[in-house]
Amino acid sequence: MAEHAALENLVVLDLCRVIAGPFCGAMLADLGATVIKIEMPGKGDDARSYAPYINGESLYYSNLNRNKYGITLDMKQEAGKEVLRELVKKADILIENFRPGVMDRMGLGYEELKKVNPKLIYGAVSGFGSYGRYHARPGYDIIAQAMGGLMSITGQAGNPPTRSGNAMGDILGGLNLSIGVLAAVNARNLTGEGQRVDISLTDCVVASLEQAVQRYSVSGKVPERRGNSYEAIAPYDTYRAKDGYVVIGCGNQKLYEHFCRNIMGKPELIDDERFLTVPLRVENNLILKEYFEEWTGTRSVEDVTETLLKEGIPAGPIYDLADIFRDEHITKDREMLIHTTHPVMGEIVLNGNPVKLMGTKTNVDRKPSPTLGEDNHKILTEFLGMSEERYGELADRKVI
Amino acid sequence: MAEHAALENLVVLDLCRVIAGPFCGAMLADLGATVIKIEMPGKGDDARSYAPYINGESLYYSNLNRNKYGITLDMKQEAGKEVLRELVKKADILIENFRPGVMDRMGLGYEELKKVNPKLIYGAVSGFGSYGRYHARPGYDIIAQAMGGLMSITGQAGNPPTRSGNAMGDILGGLNLSIGVLAAVNARNLTGEGQRVDISLTDCVVASLEQAVQRYSVSGKVPERRGNSYEAIAPYDTYRAKDGYVVIGCGNQKLYEHFCRNIMGKPELIDDERFLTVPLRVENNLILKEYFEEWTGTRSVEDVTETLLKEGIPAGPIYDLADIFRDEHITKDREMLIHTTHPVMGEIVLNGNPVKLMGTKTNVDRKPSPTLGEDNHKILTEFLGMSEERYGELADRKVI
Repeated sequence: MAEHAALENLVVLDLCRVIAGPFCGAMLADLGATVIKIEMPGKGDDARSYAPYINGESLYYSNLNRNKYGITLDMKQEAGKEVLRELVKKADILIENFRPGVMDRMGLGYEELKKVNPKLIYGAVSGFGSYGRYHARPGYDIIAQAMGGLMSITGQAGNPPTRSGNAMGDILGGLNLSIGVLAAVNARNLTGEGQRVDISLTDCVVASLEQAVQRYSVSGKVPERRGNSYEAIAPYDTYRAKDGYVVIGCGNQKLYEHFCRNIMGKPELIDDERFLTVPLRVENNLILKEYFEEWTGTRSVEDVTETLLKEGIPAGPIYDLADIFRDEHITKDREMLIHTTHPVMGEIVLNGNPVKLMGTKTNVDRKPSPTLGEDNHKILTEFLGMSEERYGELADRKVI
Repeated sequence: MAEHAALENLVVLDLCRVIAGPFCGAMLADLGATVIKIEMPGKGDDARSYAPYINGESLYYSNLNRNKYGITLDMKQEAGKEVLRELVKKADILIENFRPGVMDRMGLGYEELKKVNPKLIYGAVSGFGSYGRYHARPGYDIIAQAMGGLMSITGQAGNPPTRSGNAMGDILGGLNLSIGVLAAVNARNLTGEGQRVDISLTDCVVASLEQAVQRYSVSGKVPERRGNSYEAIAPYDTYRAKDGYVVIGCGNQKLYEHFCRNIMGKPELIDDERFLTVPLRVENNLILKEYFEEWTGTRSVEDVTETLLKEGIPAGPIYDLADIFRDEHITKDREMLIHTTHPVMGEIVLNGNPVKLMGTKTNVDRKPSPTLGEDNHKILTEFLGMSEERYGELADRKVI
């Protein structure tokens, strides 16, 4: 089985730009699909202009487009549409993240492409989805984080609503699109037909809110920002140590009692009526936190973490990027930072893939991201079987 | 095709507790898989004790376990292990989120279960994964958010590292596990064999950091908290309006110039050397923000949003949970809040599913979450074909 890749039977056309769509394309490619990225001639994906750069190439782009073949195609020209339709005939999946309607206006919407290949799975991701009253609105990650409710519950108490420091809406969108197209692949084995998969970044953020939705639905009380504590469990927070912050989670009564009695040497806290149950500890978290910080505050983060882990209590440091690059569990054992070589950029670091398949191995490093149009000749002549004459014509007319 | 569900051919055994694993089980169930949740007799999933409650049942649990059948099984008793092995024979996928090693110590690890059913796909999710030097550490969402680097880049400048207000590490874990098992289903069609899928919450958070990894790898400068602005684009931030905050994203030069000239009536900002390019605007974002807030500060959030959307500039309000419940695009058009009835709780609200399959419809509301052991008789006698006599014995001996 080792010689197989999980999705090696699938051909994906990736028409996406920037993050959400390309992240899905990279996921499918890491899992072994043949992913052909299609970009506008002379211009390419917007992300090609995003920092950081090395030797004029964008490393931002390179991370999100590893393992893909890259071709250029002007889909506004009829000759370009024709090439896309030929590619669609040989593809299993097409993914795009244009504003809804753009593909339709080019005559390349799902209804048209389905006539060319009824087995095609057509995945789209956009700010608000391809239907619904806001479908035509432009959407960015930050708008999905805002309107999906995530910012309203993230941040310190009394502070403004806070954006997740990464493009979390886009990441969730890419993951949900990956699930959607893979589910549709299974469905195609049952029905013999492809279908459309429609993902909205805002939907994805709303779905990620988990219990905040239920809490509001029952109490009518709007969930607020509460720093790093959790509405459902306490003690479960960040605590000040001598040299920074440390995270501790005493998820149940046993761990809490163990901490009070054997770690802090304050057994009286167990019977303190302010802290008798999980809901009471959630309510009085700030007071309880002071007791915890009396203990953590005189110790280093490392000391707290080691002491607690030895006692079976979940704890850990707060890592910044430098810490992550130093941690061998993350970098070596789990292969979550991939050091590789790009023909133009030289040595680069890519994010690893967290979907660890133990049989058909996930592989981040099969092929570097393409320079603009790098695989035009290979894909059009070898994969599509186009004549050199027609290829030359397309190049002359700037269709590719 | 409408009568099919995307994953209707798949049987999933869900041995998971709390969020990350159950979220994956719910995803597969929404997509049509037959998901059998297996819980400890008399006790059940820890999440059954998490607020909010209605009539003694946990709505927290109910949201994460909709569409599942529920049985109880004491896997520490030999008779319980035997039932699990019989279920495994008839299952496609098993998912679990115990501490790594727990299933092995019960004699129910992948190597054992594979002997029973070589086609079984075995998906596990844990804080640090089932291999690597930290594999035995207890892991919670907050620890993955901390050690995965997300907290270090989330928060206002100068403020402490900030946890995403939802259990984002768990959500990412559940999504990546869903992708892994679906990819393994495709692989099984190629190889004829199942395999193990191993997901670590910390890995999932690291993978979500996107360009922060590349940025640090190139500059050696540790990415810091920067409020709601983005390192790659400006103007792209929250801005103070008369009655709250509004989000605006001017993702490219054209939108920026349009905003300065035609919206704010300050064409001089276009040629201001502090704001000439995207990188300069990122660098001088706080100064530029003051100009923007001169304009937004005298208008309501609704006024700013409507004005900008009319002009094609991405903008939106920051929604809290009450706003989400009121917004008909989210609730009605996209069906992201599902009002349904639970036999014990009565009317409840579940999070919608963002994976919109347009052919084989995703369905959040096929079956309410099970009360503890609700489907014991149905699953064991009808699905497994167990005799009433043996069923009675198992009940008597508290195996179920």
